[in-house]
Amino acid sequence: MKNPVYICGNGNVGSALAREFARHKIEVSGIFSRDTEKKNEHSLRTCRYGIDVPEDNAIVFLTVPDRYIGETEKNIGNGNYYVVHTAGSIPLQTLTAKRKGVFYPLQTYSVGVKVNWENIPVLVESNDEELLEALFEIVAAFGARGIETDSEQRAAVHLSAVFANNFSNAMFNIAEKLTISAGLPPDVLTPLIAQTVKKLELLHADQAQTGPAKRGDTITMEKHLKLLETEPQYAAIYKMVSAFISGSK
Amino acid sequence: MKNPVYICGNGNVGSALAREFARHKIEVSGIFSRDTEKKNEHSLRTCRYGIDVPEDNAIVFLTVPDRYIGETEKNIGNGNYYVVHTAGSIPLQTLTAKRKGVFYPLQTYSVGVKVNWENIPVLVESNDEELLEALFEIVAAFGARGIETDSEQRAAVHLSAVFANNFSNAMFNIAEKLTISAGLPPDVLTPLIAQTVKKLELLHADQAQTGPAKRGDTITMEKHLKLLETEPQYAAIYKMVSAFISGSK
Repeated sequence: MKNPVYICGNGNVGSALAREFARHKIEVSGIFSRDTEKKNEHSLRTCRYGIDVPEDNAIVFLTVPDRYIGETEKNIGNGNYYVVHTAGSIPLQTLTAKRKGVFYPLQTYSVGVKVNWENIPVLVESNDEELLEALFEIVAAFGARGIETDSEQRAAVHLSAVFANNFSNAMFNIAEKLTISAGLPPDVLTPLIAQTVKKLELLHADQAQTGPAKRGDTITMEKHLKLLETEPQYAAIYKMVSAFISGSK
Repeated sequence: MKNPVYICGNGNVGSALAREFARHKIEVSGIFSRDTEKKNEHSLRTCRYGIDVPEDNAIVFLTVPDRYIGETEKNIGNGNYYVVHTAGSIPLQTLTAKRKGVFYPLQTYSVGVKVNWENIPVLVESNDEELLEALFEIVAAFGARGIETDSEQRAAVHLSAVFANNFSNAMFNIAEKLTISAGLPPDVLTPLIAQTVKKLELLHADQAQTGPAKRGDTITMEKHLKLLETEPQYAAIYKMVSAFISGSK
Protein backbone atom coordinates (compact mmCIF):
# COMPACT_ATOMS: atom_id res chain seq x y z
CA MET A 1 0.00 0.00 0.00
CA LYS A 2 1.81 3.12 -1.15
CA ASN A 3 -0.93 5.50 0.04
CA PRO A 4 -1.16 6.46 3.72
CA VAL A 5 -4.52 5.38 5.19
CA TYR A 6 -6.76 7.36 7.55
CA ILE A 7 -10.08 6.38 9.08
CA CYS A 8 -12.68 8.88 10.27
CA GLY A 9 -15.09 7.27 12.69
CA ASN A 10 -14.59 4.39 15.10
CA GLY A 11 -18.03 2.79 15.04
CA ASN A 12 -18.79 -0.73 13.75
CA VAL A 13 -17.47 -0.22 10.20
CA GLY A 14 -14.50 1.94 11.21
CA SER A 15 -13.34 -0.56 13.82
CA ALA A 16 -13.85 -3.53 11.50
CA LEU A 17 -11.78 -1.74 8.87
CA ALA A 18 -9.02 -0.78 11.33
CA ARG A 19 -8.81 -4.36 12.63
CA GLU A 20 -8.53 -5.73 9.12
CA PHE A 21 -5.81 -3.26 8.10
CA ALA A 22 -3.86 -4.31 11.19
CA ARG A 23 -4.35 -7.99 10.41
CA HIS A 24 -2.85 -7.48 6.95
CA LYS A 25 0.02 -5.25 8.13
CA ILE A 26 -1.31 -2.17 6.37
CA GLU A 27 -0.36 0.80 8.51
CA VAL A 28 -3.13 3.20 9.44
CA SER A 29 -1.65 6.68 9.88
CA GLY A 30 -4.53 8.12 11.86
CA ILE A 31 -7.99 7.36 13.20
CA PHE A 32 -10.18 10.39 13.77
CA SER A 33 -12.92 9.93 16.27
CA ARG A 34 -15.66 12.02 17.75
CA ASP A 35 -14.76 14.13 20.73
CA THR A 36 -16.74 12.15 23.30
CA GLU A 37 -16.45 15.00 25.80
CA LYS A 38 -18.79 17.01 23.63
CA LYS A 39 -21.67 14.63 23.11
CA ASN A 40 -23.18 16.48 20.15
CA GLU A 41 -19.91 17.08 18.36
CA HIS A 42 -19.70 14.91 15.27
CA SER A 43 -17.00 16.81 13.46
CA LEU A 44 -14.29 14.23 14.17
CA ARG A 45 -11.25 16.43 14.61
CA THR A 46 -9.78 14.46 17.47
CA CYS A 47 -7.03 12.27 16.16
CA ARG A 48 -6.62 9.20 18.32
CA TYR A 49 -3.11 8.55 17.07
CA GLY A 50 -0.74 9.39 14.22
CA ILE A 51 -0.68 12.60 12.25
CA ASP A 52 -3.75 14.78 12.48
CA VAL A 53 -3.64 16.22 8.97
CA PRO A 54 -3.68 13.60 6.19
CA GLU A 55 -0.63 13.70 3.90
CA ASP A 56 -0.72 14.09 0.14
CA ASN A 57 -2.22 11.08 -1.62
CA ALA A 58 -3.58 9.67 1.62
CA ILE A 59 -6.81 7.69 1.41
CA VAL A 60 -9.25 9.02 4.01
CA PHE A 61 -12.08 6.61 4.81
CA LEU A 62 -15.23 8.22 6.18
CA THR A 63 -16.99 5.56 8.26
CA VAL A 64 -19.33 7.90 10.10
CA PRO A 65 -23.16 7.57 9.99
CA ASP A 66 -24.55 8.63 6.59
CA ARG A 67 -25.91 11.95 7.82
CA TYR A 68 -22.50 13.10 9.10
CA ILE A 69 -20.56 12.35 5.92
CA GLY A 70 -20.92 15.91 4.57
CA GLU A 71 -20.04 17.59 7.86
CA THR A 72 -17.06 15.31 8.45
CA GLU A 73 -15.67 15.82 4.95
CA LYS A 74 -15.91 19.58 5.38
CA ASN A 75 -14.16 19.41 8.72
CA ILE A 76 -11.28 17.26 7.47
CA GLY A 77 -10.69 19.95 4.83
CA ASN A 78 -9.95 19.64 1.15
CA GLY A 79 -6.31 18.65 0.91
CA ASN A 80 -4.50 16.77 -1.81
CA TYR A 81 -5.89 13.43 -0.69
CA TYR A 82 -8.55 10.93 -1.64
CA VAL A 83 -11.84 10.83 0.24
CA VAL A 84 -13.75 7.53 0.38
CA HIS A 85 -17.06 6.82 2.07
CA THR A 86 -18.35 3.38 3.06
CA ALA A 87 -22.12 3.88 2.78
CA GLY A 88 -24.49 1.81 0.66
CA SER A 89 -27.05 4.42 -0.24
CA ILE A 90 -24.97 7.63 -0.60
CA PRO A 91 -24.03 8.54 -4.21
CA LEU A 92 -20.36 9.12 -4.99
CA GLN A 93 -21.18 12.68 -6.08
CA THR A 94 -22.27 13.60 -2.53
CA LEU A 95 -18.58 13.88 -1.65
CA THR A 96 -17.13 17.29 -2.50
CA ALA A 97 -13.52 16.13 -2.82
CA LYS A 98 -12.09 16.16 -6.35
CA ARG A 99 -10.71 12.63 -6.09
CA LYS A 100 -13.24 10.43 -4.39
CA GLY A 101 -14.43 6.89 -4.03
CA VAL A 102 -16.76 4.44 -2.31
CA PHE A 103 -15.80 1.25 -0.49
CA TYR A 104 -19.02 -0.47 0.62
CA PRO A 105 -18.61 -3.87 2.26
CA LEU A 106 -21.84 -5.88 1.96
CA GLN A 107 -21.89 -7.20 5.49
CA THR A 108 -23.62 -6.75 8.83
CA TYR A 109 -21.67 -5.54 11.83
CA SER A 110 -22.61 -5.85 15.47
CA VAL A 111 -20.45 -5.06 18.44
CA GLY A 112 -18.83 -8.23 19.73
CA VAL A 113 -19.55 -10.34 16.64
CA LYS A 114 -16.40 -11.11 14.64
CA VAL A 115 -16.63 -10.62 10.88
CA ASN A 116 -14.50 -12.55 8.45
CA TRP A 117 -13.75 -10.40 5.41
CA GLU A 118 -12.91 -13.36 3.21
CA ASN A 119 -15.14 -13.41 0.11
CA ILE A 120 -17.20 -10.49 1.44
CA PRO A 121 -18.39 -8.50 -1.58
CA VAL A 122 -17.04 -4.95 -1.49
CA LEU A 123 -18.79 -2.58 -3.88
CA VAL A 124 -16.20 -0.16 -5.17
CA GLU A 125 -16.64 3.08 -7.12
CA SER A 126 -14.37 6.00 -7.96
CA ASN A 127 -13.90 8.90 -10.37
CA ASP A 128 -10.13 8.37 -10.24
CA GLU A 129 -8.26 5.47 -11.82
CA GLU A 130 -5.45 5.46 -9.27
CA LEU A 131 -7.83 5.46 -6.34
CA LEU A 132 -9.90 2.70 -7.91
CA GLU A 133 -6.75 0.62 -8.24
CA ALA A 134 -5.74 1.31 -4.64
CA LEU A 135 -9.21 0.33 -3.37
CA PHE A 136 -9.09 -2.95 -5.30
CA GLU A 137 -5.63 -3.51 -3.82
CA ILE A 138 -7.13 -3.21 -0.34
CA VAL A 139 -9.97 -5.56 -1.28
CA ALA A 140 -7.42 -8.10 -2.51
CA ALA A 141 -5.33 -7.77 0.67
CA PHE A 142 -8.46 -8.53 2.73
CA GLY A 143 -9.26 -11.59 0.58
CA ALA A 144 -12.61 -9.95 -0.17
CA ARG A 145 -14.47 -9.87 -3.48
CA GLY A 146 -14.29 -6.49 -5.21
CA ILE A 147 -17.13 -5.51 -7.53
CA GLU A 148 -17.14 -2.22 -9.40
CA THR A 149 -20.63 -0.69 -9.44
CA ASP A 150 -22.12 2.73 -10.00
CA SER A 151 -24.04 4.56 -7.26
CA GLU A 152 -27.41 3.39 -8.57
CA GLN A 153 -26.47 -0.28 -8.49
CA ARG A 154 -25.01 0.13 -5.04
CA ALA A 155 -28.25 1.73 -3.79
CA ALA A 156 -30.22 -1.26 -5.14
CA VAL A 157 -27.90 -3.73 -3.44
CA HIS A 158 -28.16 -1.75 -0.21
CA LEU A 159 -31.94 -2.08 -0.43
CA SER A 160 -31.57 -5.82 -1.15
CA ALA A 161 -29.45 -6.11 1.96
CA VAL A 162 -32.27 -4.65 4.05
CA PHE A 163 -34.51 -7.52 2.93
CA ALA A 164 -31.77 -10.17 3.14
CA ASN A 165 -30.51 -9.15 6.55
CA ASN A 166 -32.78 -6.74 8.50
CA PHE A 167 -36.11 -8.18 7.39
CA SER A 168 -35.14 -11.86 7.59
CA ASN A 169 -33.88 -11.09 11.10
CA ALA A 170 -37.27 -9.52 11.91
CA MET A 171 -38.92 -12.81 10.85
CA PHE A 172 -36.52 -14.73 13.12
CA ASN A 173 -37.40 -12.30 15.91
CA ILE A 174 -41.16 -12.91 15.56
CA ALA A 175 -40.51 -16.67 15.40
CA GLU A 176 -38.45 -16.55 18.60
CA LYS A 177 -41.12 -14.53 20.40
CA LEU A 178 -43.89 -16.96 19.37
CA THR A 179 -41.80 -19.94 20.47
CA ILE A 180 -41.03 -18.36 23.84
CA SER A 181 -44.73 -17.56 24.31
CA ALA A 182 -45.48 -21.26 23.78
CA GLY A 183 -43.14 -22.06 26.68
CA LEU A 184 -40.33 -23.50 24.56
CA PRO A 185 -36.70 -22.39 24.29
CA PRO A 186 -36.07 -20.29 21.14
CA ASP A 187 -33.08 -22.44 20.19
CA VAL A 188 -35.46 -25.15 18.92
CA LEU A 189 -35.55 -22.93 15.81
CA THR A 190 -31.78 -22.90 15.27
CA PRO A 191 -31.45 -26.03 13.07
CA LEU A 192 -34.42 -24.95 10.95
CA ILE A 193 -32.93 -21.50 10.39
CA ALA A 194 -29.54 -23.02 9.57
CA GLN A 195 -31.11 -25.36 7.02
CA THR A 196 -33.14 -22.50 5.50
CA VAL A 197 -29.89 -20.77 4.61
CA LYS A 198 -28.02 -23.96 3.69
CA LYS A 199 -30.64 -24.69 1.04
CA LEU A 200 -29.69 -21.43 -0.67
CA GLU A 201 -26.31 -22.96 -1.56
CA LEU A 202 -28.19 -25.31 -3.88
CA LEU A 203 -31.37 -23.48 -4.83
CA HIS A 204 -32.49 -19.96 -5.58
CA ALA A 205 -34.78 -18.62 -2.86
CA ASP A 206 -37.84 -18.89 -5.11
CA GLN A 207 -37.10 -22.58 -5.74
CA ALA A 208 -36.46 -23.19 -2.04
CA GLN A 209 -39.81 -21.70 -1.01
CA THR A 210 -42.05 -24.10 0.95
CA GLY A 211 -44.89 -23.75 3.44
CA PRO A 212 -48.67 -23.35 3.56
CA ALA A 213 -48.76 -20.18 1.41
CA LYS A 214 -46.65 -21.82 -1.30
CA ARG A 215 -48.85 -24.91 -1.53
CA GLY A 216 -52.11 -22.96 -1.14
CA ASP A 217 -52.96 -24.70 2.13
CA THR A 218 -55.68 -22.31 3.30
CA ILE A 219 -56.77 -24.57 6.17
CA THR A 220 -53.38 -24.27 7.86
CA MET A 221 -53.18 -20.56 7.09
CA GLU A 222 -56.54 -19.98 8.77
CA LYS A 223 -55.37 -21.91 11.84
CA HIS A 224 -52.27 -19.72 11.98
CA LEU A 225 -54.27 -16.50 11.70
CA LYS A 226 -56.51 -17.71 14.50
CA LEU A 227 -53.43 -18.25 16.68
CA LEU A 228 -52.37 -14.69 15.85
CA GLU A 229 -55.67 -13.09 16.88
CA THR A 230 -54.02 -11.40 19.85
CA GLU A 231 -51.03 -10.27 17.75
CA PRO A 232 -52.55 -8.08 15.01
CA GLN A 233 -49.14 -6.84 13.81
CA TYR A 234 -47.85 -10.39 13.30
CA ALA A 235 -51.15 -11.33 11.63
CA ALA A 236 -50.84 -8.42 9.18
CA ILE A 237 -47.28 -9.44 8.30
CA TYR A 238 -48.42 -13.08 7.97
CA LYS A 239 -51.13 -12.13 5.47
CA MET A 240 -48.95 -9.81 3.43
CA VAL A 241 -45.93 -12.10 3.12
CA SER A 242 -48.19 -15.09 2.41
CA ALA A 243 -49.83 -13.13 -0.41
CA PHE A 244 -46.38 -12.43 -1.86
CA ILE A 245 -45.42 -16.13 -1.62
CA SER A 246 -48.72 -17.30 -3.17
CA GLY A 247 -48.30 -14.97 -6.11
CA SER A 248 -44.59 -15.47 -6.68
CA LYS A 249 -43.44 -17.79 -9.43
CA MET B 1 -36.61 -51.20 18.23
CA LYS B 2 -39.01 -53.93 19.32
CA ASN B 3 -41.98 -52.47 17.40
CA PRO B 4 -42.32 -53.08 13.67
CA VAL B 5 -42.31 -49.79 11.75
CA TYR B 6 -44.53 -48.78 8.83
CA ILE B 7 -44.57 -45.57 6.85
CA CYS B 8 -47.61 -44.29 4.95
CA GLY B 9 -46.59 -41.78 2.32
CA ASN B 10 -43.35 -41.38 0.40
CA GLY B 11 -43.17 -37.63 0.01
CA ASN B 12 -40.46 -35.41 1.53
CA VAL B 13 -41.04 -36.39 5.17
CA GLY B 14 -41.78 -40.07 4.47
CA SER B 15 -38.61 -40.48 2.42
CA ALA B 16 -36.47 -38.57 4.92
CA LEU B 17 -37.81 -40.84 7.65
CA ALA B 18 -37.25 -44.03 5.62
CA ARG B 19 -33.67 -42.99 4.80
CA GLU B 20 -32.91 -42.29 8.43
CA PHE B 21 -34.37 -45.62 9.64
CA ALA B 22 -32.16 -47.37 7.07
CA ARG B 23 -29.10 -45.39 8.16
CA HIS B 24 -29.63 -46.55 11.75
CA LYS B 25 -30.41 -50.18 10.85
CA ILE B 26 -34.01 -49.94 11.99
CA GLU B 27 -36.01 -52.22 9.74
CA VAL B 28 -39.08 -50.71 8.08
CA SER B 29 -41.65 -53.47 7.52
CA GLY B 30 -43.66 -51.63 4.92
CA ILE B 31 -44.02 -48.34 3.08
CA PHE B 32 -47.49 -47.58 1.81
CA SER B 33 -47.62 -45.20 -1.07
CA ARG B 34 -50.29 -43.67 -3.23
CA ASP B 35 -51.38 -45.66 -6.23
CA THR B 36 -49.84 -43.41 -8.86
CA GLU B 37 -51.92 -45.12 -11.57
CA LYS B 38 -54.99 -43.49 -10.08
CA LYS B 39 -53.92 -39.86 -9.82
CA ASN B 40 -56.68 -38.81 -7.42
CA GLU B 41 -56.39 -41.80 -5.14
CA HIS B 42 -54.84 -40.78 -1.83
CA SER B 43 -55.90 -43.76 0.23
CA LEU B 44 -52.44 -45.34 0.30
CA ARG B 45 -53.29 -49.02 0.15
CA THR B 46 -50.45 -49.93 -2.17
CA CYS B 47 -47.65 -51.43 -0.16
CA ARG B 48 -44.31 -50.89 -1.88
CA TYR B 49 -42.65 -53.70 0.03
CA GLY B 50 -43.03 -55.80 3.14
CA ILE B 51 -46.27 -56.89 4.73
CA ASP B 52 -49.37 -54.98 3.72
CA VAL B 53 -51.26 -55.22 7.01
CA PRO B 54 -49.36 -53.84 10.02
CA GLU B 55 -48.76 -56.40 12.77
CA ASP B 56 -49.76 -56.01 16.41
CA ASN B 57 -47.84 -53.26 18.20
CA ALA B 58 -46.50 -51.86 14.93
CA ILE B 59 -45.90 -48.13 14.79
CA VAL B 60 -47.57 -46.74 11.67
CA PHE B 61 -46.25 -43.32 10.65
CA LEU B 62 -48.63 -41.21 8.58
CA THR B 63 -46.48 -38.83 6.53
CA VAL B 64 -49.18 -37.83 4.05
CA PRO B 65 -50.29 -34.20 3.53
CA ASP B 66 -52.34 -32.90 6.49
CA ARG B 67 -55.68 -33.11 4.69
CA TYR B 68 -55.26 -36.82 3.90
CA ILE B 69 -54.41 -37.91 7.43
CA GLY B 70 -58.04 -38.80 8.29
CA GLU B 71 -58.68 -40.65 5.07
CA THR B 72 -55.41 -42.56 5.28
CA GLU B 73 -55.96 -43.59 8.87
CA LYS B 74 -59.41 -44.87 7.98
CA ASN B 75 -58.06 -46.83 5.06
CA ILE B 76 -55.25 -48.46 7.03
CA GLY B 77 -57.94 -49.71 9.42
CA ASN B 78 -58.03 -49.84 13.18
CA GLY B 79 -55.84 -52.75 14.15
CA ASN B 80 -53.93 -53.37 17.34
CA TYR B 81 -51.19 -50.94 16.38
CA TYR B 82 -50.02 -47.40 17.10
CA VAL B 83 -50.82 -44.60 14.70
CA VAL B 84 -48.47 -41.61 14.59
CA HIS B 85 -48.74 -38.50 12.43
CA THR B 86 -45.89 -36.13 11.60
CA ALA B 87 -47.76 -32.84 11.17
CA GLY B 88 -47.09 -29.62 13.04
CA SER B 89 -50.57 -28.18 13.17
CA ILE B 90 -52.82 -31.27 13.54
CA PRO B 91 -53.93 -32.05 17.14
CA LEU B 92 -53.25 -35.54 18.48
CA GLN B 93 -56.99 -36.01 19.00
CA THR B 94 -57.63 -35.82 15.25
CA LEU B 95 -56.39 -39.40 15.02
CA THR B 96 -59.13 -41.94 15.74
CA ALA B 97 -56.82 -44.78 16.82
CA LYS B 98 -56.91 -45.65 20.52
CA ARG B 99 -53.13 -45.57 20.88
CA LYS B 100 -51.75 -42.62 19.00
CA GLY B 101 -48.88 -40.20 18.84
CA VAL B 102 -47.21 -37.34 17.04
CA PHE B 103 -43.62 -37.19 15.77
CA TYR B 104 -43.02 -33.72 14.32
CA PRO B 105 -39.48 -32.96 13.16
CA LEU B 106 -38.89 -29.21 13.09
CA GLN B 107 -37.08 -29.08 9.78
CA THR B 108 -37.54 -28.06 6.17
CA TYR B 109 -37.42 -30.67 3.44
CA SER B 110 -36.85 -30.11 -0.25
CA VAL B 111 -36.28 -32.74 -2.88
CA GLY B 112 -32.56 -33.16 -3.49
CA VAL B 113 -31.42 -31.33 -0.35
CA LYS B 114 -29.92 -33.65 2.25
CA VAL B 115 -31.08 -33.21 5.82
CA ASN B 116 -28.96 -34.12 8.79
CA TRP B 117 -31.19 -35.27 11.67
CA GLU B 118 -28.55 -34.63 14.30
CA ASN B 119 -29.84 -32.20 16.95
CA ILE B 120 -33.03 -31.60 14.96
CA PRO B 121 -35.82 -30.93 17.46
CA VAL B 122 -38.55 -33.55 17.22
CA LEU B 123 -41.79 -32.58 18.98
CA VAL B 124 -43.27 -35.73 20.44
CA GLU B 125 -46.73 -36.34 21.91
CA SER B 126 -48.72 -39.45 22.80
CA ASN B 127 -51.61 -40.70 24.93
CA ASP B 128 -49.73 -43.96 25.52
CA GLU B 129 -46.65 -44.35 27.73
CA GLU B 130 -45.19 -47.23 25.73
CA LEU B 131 -45.56 -45.40 22.43
CA LEU B 132 -44.05 -42.25 23.92
CA GLU B 133 -41.06 -44.29 25.02
CA ALA B 134 -40.71 -45.91 21.60
CA LEU B 135 -40.86 -42.52 19.86
CA PHE B 136 -38.15 -41.13 22.13
CA GLU B 137 -36.11 -44.26 21.36
CA ILE B 138 -36.35 -43.41 17.65
CA VAL B 139 -35.40 -39.78 18.33
CA ALA B 140 -32.35 -40.99 20.27
CA ALA B 141 -31.35 -43.41 17.49
CA PHE B 142 -31.43 -40.52 15.02
CA GLY B 143 -29.29 -38.34 17.32
CA ALA B 144 -32.14 -35.83 17.27
CA ARG B 145 -33.46 -33.75 20.17
CA GLY B 146 -36.77 -35.03 21.52
CA ILE B 147 -39.12 -32.52 23.16
CA GLU B 148 -42.46 -33.55 24.64
CA THR B 149 -45.14 -30.96 23.88
CA ASP B 150 -48.91 -30.84 23.78
CA SER B 151 -50.80 -30.13 20.55
CA GLU B 152 -51.18 -26.44 21.36
CA GLN B 153 -47.48 -25.88 21.87
CA ARG B 154 -46.73 -27.80 18.69
CA ALA B 155 -49.16 -25.60 16.74
CA ALA B 156 -47.39 -22.49 18.05
CA VAL B 157 -43.99 -23.85 17.08
CA HIS B 158 -45.33 -24.76 13.64
CA LEU B 159 -46.46 -21.16 13.24
CA SER B 160 -43.03 -19.95 14.44
CA ALA B 161 -41.45 -22.15 11.79
CA VAL B 162 -43.46 -20.38 9.09
CA PHE B 163 -41.85 -17.08 10.13
CA ALA B 164 -38.38 -18.60 10.71
CA ASN B 165 -38.28 -20.54 7.45
CA ASN B 166 -40.96 -19.62 4.89
CA PHE B 167 -41.05 -15.88 5.56
CA SER B 168 -37.30 -15.37 5.96
CA ASN B 169 -36.94 -17.24 2.65
CA ALA B 170 -39.45 -14.84 1.09
CA MET B 171 -37.24 -11.93 2.23
CA PHE B 172 -34.22 -13.64 0.65
CA ASN B 173 -36.26 -14.10 -2.52
CA ILE B 174 -37.13 -10.39 -2.76
CA ALA B 175 -33.49 -9.50 -2.04
CA GLU B 176 -32.30 -11.80 -4.83
CA LYS B 177 -34.80 -10.35 -7.29
CA LEU B 178 -33.77 -6.75 -6.48
CA THR B 179 -30.09 -7.63 -6.85
CA ILE B 180 -30.67 -9.33 -10.20
CA SER B 181 -32.68 -6.30 -11.38
CA ALA B 182 -29.65 -4.13 -10.57
CA GLY B 183 -27.56 -6.31 -12.88
CA LEU B 184 -25.58 -8.07 -10.17
CA PRO B 185 -25.33 -11.79 -9.40
CA PRO B 186 -27.57 -12.81 -6.46
CA ASP B 187 -24.66 -14.61 -4.78
CA VAL B 188 -23.28 -11.24 -3.63
CA LEU B 189 -25.88 -11.66 -0.85
CA THR B 190 -24.63 -15.07 0.31
CA PRO B 191 -22.03 -13.90 2.88
CA LEU B 192 -24.47 -11.36 4.32
CA ILE B 193 -27.17 -14.00 4.72
CA ALA B 194 -24.69 -16.42 6.27
CA GLN B 195 -23.57 -13.78 8.78
CA THR B 196 -27.20 -12.85 9.59
CA VAL B 197 -27.74 -16.40 10.83
CA LYS B 198 -24.30 -16.76 12.41
CA LYS B 199 -25.04 -13.77 14.65
CA LEU B 200 -27.97 -15.70 16.11
CA GLU B 201 -25.51 -18.10 17.72
CA LEU B 202 -24.44 -15.21 19.95
CA LEU B 203 -27.44 -12.89 20.11
CA HIS B 204 -31.21 -13.13 20.24
CA ALA B 205 -32.78 -11.86 17.03
CA ASP B 206 -34.05 -8.70 18.72
CA GLN B 207 -30.51 -7.88 19.91
CA ALA B 208 -29.09 -8.65 16.46
CA GLN B 209 -31.49 -6.29 14.70
CA THR B 210 -29.78 -3.55 12.68
CA GLY B 211 -30.71 -1.38 9.70
CA PRO B 212 -32.42 1.91 8.90
CA ALA B 213 -35.72 1.02 10.62
CA LYS B 214 -33.93 0.04 13.83
CA ARG B 215 -31.95 3.27 14.02
CA GLY B 216 -34.85 5.45 12.86
CA ASP B 217 -33.01 6.53 9.71
CA THR B 218 -35.99 7.96 7.84
CA ILE B 219 -33.83 9.51 5.10
CA THR B 220 -32.56 6.08 4.00
CA MET B 221 -36.02 4.54 4.34
CA GLU B 222 -37.49 7.21 2.06
CA LYS B 223 -34.77 6.54 -0.52
CA HIS B 224 -35.60 2.82 -0.38
CA LEU B 225 -39.33 3.44 -0.83
CA LYS B 226 -38.53 5.64 -3.82
CA LEU B 227 -36.53 2.78 -5.36
CA LEU B 228 -39.55 0.53 -4.78
CA GLU B 229 -42.03 2.82 -6.53
CA THR B 230 -42.45 0.31 -9.36
CA GLU B 231 -42.76 -2.63 -6.92
CA PRO B 232 -45.80 -1.78 -4.75
CA GLN B 233 -45.90 -5.23 -3.13
CA TYR B 234 -42.27 -4.98 -2.00
CA ALA B 235 -42.91 -1.40 -0.83
CA ALA B 236 -45.88 -2.53 1.28
CA ILE B 237 -43.80 -5.29 2.88
CA TYR B 238 -40.96 -2.79 3.42
CA LYS B 239 -43.24 -0.39 5.29
CA MET B 240 -44.92 -3.06 7.40
CA VAL B 241 -41.78 -4.90 8.48
CA SER B 242 -39.99 -1.58 9.14
CA ALA B 243 -42.88 -0.52 11.38
CA PHE B 244 -42.51 -3.77 13.32
CA ILE B 245 -38.73 -3.24 13.68
CA SER B 246 -39.15 0.40 14.76
CA GLY B 247 -41.63 -0.53 17.44
CA SER B 248 -39.94 -3.69 18.69
CA LYS B 249 -37.88 -3.51 21.84
